[in-house]
Amino acid sequence: MQRLLVDMDGVLADIYQQFLEFESALTGQRANLEDLYGKSEREAFPLHEQYVHSAGFFGNAPLIKGAVEAMEQLNQHYEVFIVSSATEFPQSLGEKHAWLQKHFPFISWRQMVFCGSKTAVSGDIMIDDHFKNLDHFKGRTLLFKQPHNVGLPAKNHERVHDWSQILQLLLP
Amino acid sequence: MQRLLVDMDGVLADIYQQFLEFESALTGQRANLEDLYGKSEREAFPLHEQYVHSAGFFGNAPLIKGAVEAMEQLNQHYEVFIVSSATEFPQSLGEKHAWLQKHFPFISWRQMVFCGSKTAVSGDIMIDDHFKNLDHFKGRTLLFKQPHNVGLPAKNHERVHDWSQILQLLLP
Repeated sequence: MQRLLVDMDGVLADIYQQFLEFESALTGQRANLEDLYGKSEREAFPLHEQYVHSAGFFGNAPLIKGAVEAMEQLNQHYEVFIVSSATEFPQSLGEKHAWLQKHFPFISWRQMVFCGSKTAVSGDIMIDDHFKNLDHFKGRTLLFKQPHNVGLPAKNHERVHDWSQILQLLLP
Repeated sequence: MQRLLVDMDGVLADIYQQFLEFESALTGQRANLEDLYGKSEREAFPLHEQYVHSAGFFGNAPLIKGAVEAMEQLNQHYEVFIVSSATEFPQSLGEKHAWLQKHFPFISWRQMVFCGSKTAVSGDIMIDDHFKNLDHFKGRTLLFKQPHNVGLPAKNHERVHDWSQILQLLLP
């Protein structure tokens, strides 16, 4: 069984909706996603330091469309690990654990990895929206569409736009 | 630079002292470590389910002797990751993060990995007290002495009794 590593923020959890929500609460203005294409999250949300450590920022993130149904199927065919950058934000650790238990009850604690850098985590396939995680990975790499990676060269990664496309690629 | 994976409970944190403390608070009797040789933690501490989920069980664990000084040196010579089984106990996630920051301030959030199974974490050397973590590891494996592994066959792992012995083996 191949080992499939799946990112949380920007792949399972719609963290851009949280950024837009929290940023607009401070500025009174809500950006359009299209205007954020190619900008890093830090560039797109200049006030992020004021809220990314807040309770609920990660814990109340909405789901990315189709993620639950897709993961339920992939979990039957792959050795799945959810690998999330979390140790930079200590309050996110408990929130992310609870979020996974709530939305993905078929994913056990044995399949969760909360880390800082993903360089020490190995597998056959990685799904992630960030180049910094995919670039060093030795297996097959799927770049999940998020505003920050739109328009940038995909390098040696396969671009995927949504979970239905991932299922087409990865289901037998 | 070689990647060195270091376990927390039973290697950096003296979790047996916590087991003895919490168990004796319930039973009124404190076991001798020698009487626990070769027994699994579950066998040695039959009431563990009543307290391992308690606040402070992980967060207030004392240090293993010599761990801080040794890690400070090893951190200069290796790409160090602290890899801890933590997702089984959600409340331990924040506690372990804070414990590391307090006792090992030279270890950054980038070097922390909190997981359930360690099978997806790869490196060159692993220090751990549990066979279940060492047995599947592809690199060099150091079995740190704890009561539960005393008297059992070391298999293909190198036994180490304390941190000074580890420094003798791993420092250039």
